[in-house]
Amino acid sequence: MPAPRQFLNYVDANANNFIKRLADAVAIPSVSGDASYRPDVFRMAEFLEKQLKSVGCEVRPVPLGKQVLDGQEIDLPPALLASIGNDPSKKTILCYGHFDVQPALKSDGWDTEPFTLLVDEKTGRLIGRGSTDDKGPVLGWVNVLQAHKELGIPLPVNLKFCFEGMEENGSEGLDGLIEKEAQKGGFFEGVDAVCISDNYWLNTRTPCLTYGLRGICYYKVTISGPARDLHSGAYGGTVYEPMTDLIQLFSKLVTPTGKILIPGVNELVAPLTDEERERYEKIDYGVEDIEESVGAQIAISEDKAEVLMARMRYPSLSLHGIEGAFSAPGAKTVIPAKVSGKFSIRVVPNQTPEQLDPLVSRYLEFEFAKLLSKNKLSVESLHGGKPWVADPNHWNYVAASRATQAIYNLEPDLTREGGSIPVTLTFAEQLGVNVLLLPMGRGDDGAHSTNEKLDRSNYIEGTKLLGTYLYEVGAIQKD
Amino acid sequence: MPAPRQFLNYVDANANNFIKRLADAVAIPSVSGDASYRPDVFRMAEFLEKQLKSVGCEVRPVPLGKQVLDGQEIDLPPALLASIGNDPSKKTILCYGHFDVQPALKSDGWDTEPFTLLVDEKTGRLIGRGSTDDKGPVLGWVNVLQAHKELGIPLPVNLKFCFEGMEENGSEGLDGLIEKEAQKGGFFEGVDAVCISDNYWLNTRTPCLTYGLRGICYYKVTISGPARDLHSGAYGGTVYEPMTDLIQLFSKLVTPTGKILIPGVNELVAPLTDEERERYEKIDYGVEDIEESVGAQIAISEDKAEVLMARMRYPSLSLHGIEGAFSAPGAKTVIPAKVSGKFSIRVVPNQTPEQLDPLVSRYLEFEFAKLLSKNKLSVESLHGGKPWVADPNHWNYVAASRATQAIYNLEPDLTREGGSIPVTLTFAEQLGVNVLLLPMGRGDDGAHSTNEKLDRSNYIEGTKLLGTYLYEVGAIQKD
Ligand SMILES: [Zn+2]
Ligand SMILES: [Zn+2]
Ligand SMILES: [Zn+2]
Ligand SMILES: [Zn+2]
Repeated sequence: MPAPRQFLNYVDANANNFIKRLADAVAIPSVSGDASYRPDVFRMAEFLEKQLKSVGCEVRPVPLGKQVLDGQEIDLPPALLASIGNDPSKKTILCYGHFDVQPALKSDGWDTEPFTLLVDEKTGRLIGRGSTDDKGPVLGWVNVLQAHKELGIPLPVNLKFCFEGMEENGSEGLDGLIEKEAQKGGFFEGVDAVCISDNYWLNTRTPCLTYGLRGICYYKVTISGPARDLHSGAYGGTVYEPMTDLIQLFSKLVTPTGKILIPGVNELVAPLTDEERERYEKIDYGVEDIEESVGAQIAISEDKAEVLMARMRYPSLSLHGIEGAFSAPGAKTVIPAKVSGKFSIRVVPNQTPEQLDPLVSRYLEFEFAKLLSKNKLSVESLHGGKPWVADPNHWNYVAASRATQAIYNLEPDLTREGGSIPVTLTFAEQLGVNVLLLPMGRGDDGAHSTNEKLDRSNYIEGTKLLGTYLYEVGAIQKD
Repeated sequence: MPAPRQFLNYVDANANNFIKRLADAVAIPSVSGDASYRPDVFRMAEFLEKQLKSVGCEVRPVPLGKQVLDGQEIDLPPALLASIGNDPSKKTILCYGHFDVQPALKSDGWDTEPFTLLVDEKTGRLIGRGSTDDKGPVLGWVNVLQAHKELGIPLPVNLKFCFEGMEENGSEGLDGLIEKEAQKGGFFEGVDAVCISDNYWLNTRTPCLTYGLRGICYYKVTISGPARDLHSGAYGGTVYEPMTDLIQLFSKLVTPTGKILIPGVNELVAPLTDEERERYEKIDYGVEDIEESVGAQIAISEDKAEVLMARMRYPSLSLHGIEGAFSAPGAKTVIPAKVSGKFSIRVVPNQTPEQLDPLVSRYLEFEFAKLLSKNKLSVESLHGGKPWVADPNHWNYVAASRATQAIYNLEPDLTREGGSIPVTLTFAEQLGVNVLLLPMGRGDDGAHSTNEKLDRSNYIEGTKLLGTYLYEVGAIQKD
């Protein structure tokens, strides 16, 4: 069931009002990672609360307690739990978004003031911090509700919203809230599916639906030897050097082509089905896109599906660096006494941190023993997060796919992301329902970079997309 | 020929005056590596010039031009060229030393004011910056001359002195001066041998003579890939990662037991003779000493001679660190775009930087090609210095050995050092004569550390040693 024509017309007619709404939101520098901006995050919560109320929502700001940031104990910004509609014959969709942003200073290299939305009439870009991540998508929902209120037409589903102000800083406090409200009688009771609009198209051309995220296992491998740093003139050749041992261990983790060498790790990967492989073949993103976005011709595979699968459905291991070794410019002849190598594995179904941690530790201990070094090894897991994957054939995805075709006249790419959005997994696990990632912005929006933008067409068509998605959800028989 | 009894008695009788002289010198903070102390380095040069003149030397301060330090162009401190005696029937010995010091602040962790010599009557330690490095040894020569002047006895040799004020900061300007004065008609004409007192006994018990130094070849290996740092979530698995390549290369340089894997490097090492091996067997320094000084039981060999040879006569390769990778505490999921690994090889006869540089480059290029990576490799030599070794059977060493036995009643250890003292090589090459390293201080003096000290007995017996060495040189028939 397509959205009513009058809804789509209303969005077009009110485009400038919607852009004004985004400009008002961008003007509030709700940077969650800097204590000095905390009052602005609160101000942003109030702004959004008011917006939601004005379009018919009931809103409950939930205090999340305190945190220590930049050496001071400060209040966490509230999460906003909002709802509209309570018709038991309709489906209930939970929408998640965040109203905090990454830091931004003009001096970082912005061409314009980051907290003043610039509407570039020539390129159609709406430039400003938070435009695409994640104020544009959050306000997209408000726009949809405004249209329905003003037009006096009922919503095709019941809606609940969970908007937070700490996403860019670890979503502190949110997991506890979700766990609590997912219980019987909690705010999330009765939710049939979740829709999160907080990621991006792979490219600049083709909308996508995202049904998977890799998890991560991050490790710190420490080798310690002498009691203090040594001079390589006096001691080079006489003692076991921690750096030599660490480099040997690190060389045994992954090959230049990305093959993980830790026994048992690859064996845990879910087998590839023909259907899934086809999905990669169909995605509008290729080796050239990868190479263009990294700025060098260094793709490991020349096969499009292989490259996409390497990012989306296979694990990868990256060596990030070494703490404690000489890392400055110049030439220092030090034998570092204690060095800690950092690496992480992006994990995929069916790998879990619980399974990987012992595989990694045991392998490193085994390989270290082979070195016959007299230095000491320790392996720590710094953090771990599970991968997530949803069923892209679920009605939630079917509805989003139909909506995309209705608005963009294109079949959306079915993608998985290489990174993690931890809240996705929390919703999936706590609510036990299907979660859909339905992005509004494009792959070149520069979410955490300078000159972050959201294209005007993505904002306006994206608002239509969110509304249409609700109609497509409503049209599917509730089971 | 032992030194005359009256000389030795004079030194004992004037010990407190000599300590006062050292205290006066330590009180001048002649830190060469910090522009704000430069006037003190000049003051120290004047102090030393006056001292040398007062004991009968002709002294010529030689300006060495300018340098840029801490962003300002400032005058280099002068070198002092001094001489006493001009008897063609006597040998001529050139003595080198330096009157500048390492930086020192009480807040670095000193127990006392670093530029106030503390005479610790209980332990016999003379504590202060420059006490052992290198003001004590330099003033040892002045003490010897004072004794001869006061006693009215002739010196057994002609003496020339070359004292500089930039040793701790790269000896800037000195090489040019030595080259110039080594020419026919120059100040160094007629020098029969050189004596440098600017290193230390291996241990705290046994005097030594040092006849070799390792050189160094320092390399920077850069791998560059993407145009900017990447996020491992989005790109891990899809592109060749510079860190992975660098770790692979670094793992092929040296084994945990210190074996250098670059073909051709070990083959250049001068063969070991039985006589030389015996020298290591006789040295009063063992595996326990090494382990005590590094503070951990991590010696590679349990054989004393092997450990000593590893430090003194074999090359070693140390991996110092990586520039451009993640080196801070914490967990960052970065794929660094460009990483530069630093390593150096301590080189020994008959290895030279000219021979090693191409061996190293070619090997790294060869191994990199085997990785089949699409990243780029570059190899740079950051600096190179040749090793030095002298003939320990030369009369210069024989004289020093006899003097040591006369003063300490011990046969000196014949040692080589693992690090480099570049001026040694310059004198050996430019003057074409034997160079002797005759240390005054002990292995635990802490030359560049907090609480630098020179034991009172090393200063006083060391003064006797320097004087006696001149008598033993004088007693050997001039050829
Ligand atoms: Zn976001
Ligand atoms: Zn973000
Ligand atoms: Zn020195
Ligand atoms: Zn020094």
